[in-house]
Formats: sequence, C-alpha cells, structure tokens
Amino acid sequence: MASIKDVAKLAGVGIGTASRALSGNGYVAPATRKKIEDAARQLDYTPNVLAQNLLKNRSGIIGVLIPSLDHYFFSELAQRLESDLYKKGYKTMICCTKNQENGEQDYLDMLENNLVDGIITATHSFNDQAYTDSKRVIVSFDRDFKGRIPMVCSDHEKAGRMAAVHFVESGCKKVLSIYGKDTIGGHISTGKAHQVLKEELEKAGISVTEVCTEAGIFDMEACRRTAGECLEKYPEADGVFASDSFCVPFLFQAAGMAIAVPEKLKLITYDATDITRTVHPRLSGVGQRIEEISQILTETLIKKIQGEEVKEKQVLDVYWQDGGTCL
Amino acid sequence: MASIKDVAKLAGVGIGTASRALSGNGYVAPATRKKIEDAARQLDYTPNVLAQNLLKNRSGIIGVLIPSLDHYFFSELAQRLESDLYKKGYKTMICCTKNQENGEQDYLDMLENNLVDGIITATHSFNDQAYTDSKRVIVSFDRDFKGRIPMVCSDHEKAGRMAAVHFVESGCKKVLSIYGKDTIGGHISTGKAHQVLKEELEKAGISVTEVCTEAGIFDMEACRRTAGECLEKYPEADGVFASDSFCVPFLFQAAGMAIAVPEKLKLITYDATDITRTVHPRLSGVGQRIEEISQILTETLIKKIQGEEVKEKQVLDVYWQDGGTCL
Repeated sequence: MASIKDVAKLAGVGIGTASRALSGNGYVAPATRKKIEDAARQLDYTPNVLAQNLLKNRSGIIGVLIPSLDHYFFSELAQRLESDLYKKGYKTMICCTKNQENGEQDYLDMLENNLVDGIITATHSFNDQAYTDSKRVIVSFDRDFKGRIPMVCSDHEKAGRMAAVHFVESGCKKVLSIYGKDTIGGHISTGKAHQVLKEELEKAGISVTEVCTEAGIFDMEACRRTAGECLEKYPEADGVFASDSFCVPFLFQAAGMAIAVPEKLKLITYDATDITRTVHPRLSGVGQRIEEISQILTETLIKKIQGEEVKEKQVLDVYWQDGGTCL
Repeated sequence: MASIKDVAKLAGVGIGTASRALSGNGYVAPATRKKIEDAARQLDYTPNVLAQNLLKNRSGIIGVLIPSLDHYFFSELAQRLESDLYKKGYKTMICCTKNQENGEQDYLDMLENNLVDGIITATHSFNDQAYTDSKRVIVSFDRDFKGRIPMVCSDHEKAGRMAAVHFVESGCKKVLSIYGKDTIGGHISTGKAHQVLKEELEKAGISVTEVCTEAGIFDMEACRRTAGECLEKYPEADGVFASDSFCVPFLFQAAGMAIAVPEKLKLITYDATDITRTVHPRLSGVGQRIEEISQILTETLIKKIQGEEVKEKQVLDVYWQDGGTCL
C-alpha cells in the first residue's frame, strides 16, 4: 500500500507539504497541490486516519458511557446520541459498564490516552474522583458532580410533583415508590423525583412505601421478578411510581395476578420511552425529553471540546403522558 | 505533557527502547526497563494510544453496523457484542445506519482508513459491492454475500417449519406473514423463514397472506401502525407470524380492538427477545440464540483479523418458546 512518503516522492515534494495538501490543513500552492493530488491518485493512496488523527491530536470519536444497551431508556438515548454525534462529524464508541469489572475505569483511561476526544457519561456506578480527576472533556447526564463537570438532566422535582398530583387526584391511599439504590452518595438525580413524590403525598395524607432495588438492575428478568415480588408483598398498594423498566413489567405481572389496572392499581411510569406507548393500555406517566437531552449533551460536549464556555447545569422540562393506567 | 522522547532522554536510552519497554512489545533488559519505567512515573507520562496504534497498525476498535439501537433485537445483539468484544480486548464503535444518508458508506470507509480493525455488519440496506470490494476484515450477520464474506445466521428454514407446525396444530386457517421488503435482491436470510412457512402451510391447506412492509422499519410507532392496519384490513386472519418488533404491537393492538388472543388470533413471534417474556401473555414463538450469535461473530472476526481460516457460513439452531399466544 502506498504511503504519504511514496506520494511525496512521486510529486517531488517534502512529506510535510504532501501531508498538508492531502489533509487540507495549512497552505500549499495550487500547482503543487495538484501535483500531489495527481500522485496520490496514481498511487491509489488511502489516507491513514490514525496517522491524521495523531497529527491533529484528535480522534473524531466520542465515548458514550451507559450502564446497558439492553434497556429502554438507555438504548433510546444511545440511538439518539449516535445520530446527533454523527451529524456533527463524530463517531460513537459505546461503552457499557454493566457486568464489566473495571470497565468504567478502562473506558475513562481512553480519555487520558487520546483514544476519544470526549466522553458523555450516563452511568452511576463509579466513584466521582475517577471523573473529576480527569482534565479531559466530559459531560454528564443525570449525575451531579457538584459543578466540577457540566451536567444535563431532567427536572426531577417537577416530575415528582407531577406524579404526586395524579396519585392524589385518582384517590390513591398507599403508593409504592420504586427506585435503584444510590451507591455513590446522593449524586443520582432521579432519586429527587421519588423524594419529592414522598413529601407531596405525605402532605396529602397518602402513605408511601419506598422499595429500594439493587443498584444497576438493568435486565428485564430482574425487573419482572421485582415487580412480582412487590405485588405479593404489598397487596394493599393501590399505586406504583417507577421507571419504565419496572412499570412495564408491573403492568403485566398485575395482569397475570388478575389485579385490575387502573381500577385496583394505578401505575405512573417515569421516562415514558416508546415501549410505554406500545403496550395496552398505554402507560400514564411523566416523560423525559430524550430527543432534547441528546441534542444538548452533544452540543455541550462539542462546545467544551472547542474550548468554549458551557453552562454548569442544564435542567430540561418534563411532560405528562396521558395513558390508561392512572385516569 | 511528557512525551516518549522526554522519557527516553531522562532514562538515557533511545526512543525505540523506551517505546518497546512501555508498550511491552519486544525485548528490553530488566535493568533498562526499570530505568525507563521510573522515568515514565517521574514525568507522569501517559501513553498516546493513537500513536501506539499507529505503530502497531491496529486501533483496537471494532465497528458494529446495525440499522438501529432503538429496536429489540439489535439493542440486545449490540449489548452482547459490546460485552464479548470487550472481553477480547476490543472497544465497540456503534454505527447505526437508520436515518443517516451515506452513513453506511461512511462507516465502511473507516475500514479502509484504518480507523477500525474490523467490522461486524448486521445491516441490509446497502449494496453488496461496497462490502465485497473491501479487502479488510468483515463478518456478516444474517446477510448472504455468497461466500465472499463469512456469515453467521440462524436456521431460518427450521424456524419457518417450526412456526408452521404450531399454526397447523392450533387449527389456523388464514395466516398473515409479515416481513420487511427485500431491497437488495434476495440476500436477507430471514426472508427464508417466511418462504418456508408459506410452503408448509399451503401444503396443509392453510392460506397465507404476505404483508411486505417498507424495508428498514425500525421504529415502534410505525410497527404499531402496521399492526393496527393489518388487523383492520384482514379481519378474517386467525394467525400472525412476524418479528418481535411487529408481534409485540400486534398483541396490544388486538387487545385494543378486543380481539381475543389466542382464542381468535394466534401470534407466533420470531426472535423471542426479552420483551416477549415480559408481556402478558408471554409470546409464543421461535427464538434466535442471540448469546451464541454474538460469541460466534466475535470469535470469527478475531480469527479473521489474526489471519486464520474461518468457516464461510455458520448456521445456528433455533428453539421454540412456549407462551400464551399460540397454545
């Protein structure tokens, strides 16, 4: 295979000149450029992107750290991020941290090692320091690094209040609030929705039972089991607030146990990804604006890569999705 | 930031020796190695992976081309591939070709440009030549390049026969067979399942109506609409054979239209991804062994990268999933 050296030799120029002409970085006289381009064509020269990237100290790759792809919210988010990043000229390296010991650290090392130009992290499992120690470009989704890393998230407090209003209106008395255990000291922001829900419901005289699942449950089998166990353990519950991954199996576990939804049990889901509109009845719930989340994460990261100022925290609005599980 | 040059200088060795010691490629005397490692530590030297990769002519990245992540089968497959490739020391670059004009060609160019060490392709949208023209390492899932690219797929003929047996046993008379339009000339192998199903059912005197959807329907909204339209248009149908993406919405569109499943309508899904075990009733159907598919794709690609011989075609067995939609 022809190298840039061969091209330079045939064109009768130095390697630096040939490289400038072919990469489009820096001035080369038009006549010289033509000679070089002709030589490249003649030799069937293919540029080595690795070599070019090394020169530019840029890989054109963004690492996207998520817990799992096999998950309603994260597969939808990853799909959108890949598409938004592609439009901006970046390729997406997907890094799933579920089940991979040291995976998150390993992927973070890529940043230091120049393999990626930046990272969008949407995982919750690792200690903060590994992220904040890095001097490279990181943007966080839904994890609060207390101002040390720019963050994009939904308005979880509003989500909690919105769910509370609907439980109150529908006359619920005993609500289950289901969420993942926080293993990193209060930095997961979705917990806020459950906290606000509890406060609001208790003000209205409604009892709330919090069910704290193992952190990082991201397979449907475990979610199904949890839903079934909750219905067995709390037969008097008449409302459930949980993420799509739990709310979808709740709908079907209830059907399997002949518990009428919404008559006996109201379900309010949080995230409202596409699956919640596919099932029958469609789930009632609070929606995160995944499309906007992806766009803002992408724009913020690229701004930061280009050395521009970015906002420390961007909070996106949530919306109510009408459905048949909480009338 | 310290470079390899700085490390070499401080250790009093040549750049080549320092590089060999730090990359672990090639012999360096233990005492010299120690000096170099000490110097690297002292200077807080971080290796530049791009530079190392250039040296090795290897990026450590595998491109995985799929139509979409926002899809039951492909998100599950991508999840497993990422995990299997990670275990073998490779990072996964996800390339979704849905909605991205020229995306597939652009991603294939990465191969020629040394950005990835190999590609696993599971897309159907592009012309064959773009793949077969490449001299680099590609392995195909479920797309038949007629021996020019190694292929892994499920036994679609057996899947079609398996589904046929269950439709016959359950007494169906009019079966809808739903699949995506083949725009690339008969090279999509899932079509085989539908073809065999039709032959087997017609032999048994059962009528089959084929519904050919637009190629590349990969969003749930479109699948829901298709399911609803089919039930409107073919009220006499008493069986449906379709992929999970269609079969899941069929279940719920039928519920919305008060069509009793399985009494009035039997559903047999193909793929049997996790969602088909979450819904109630659980879908009856034919399963693809995604876990094995991912392992074999990974192993075959790595063998090919290492220059070993690989099988031209590897066909994996399918299995029957008992459920409540076709008793």
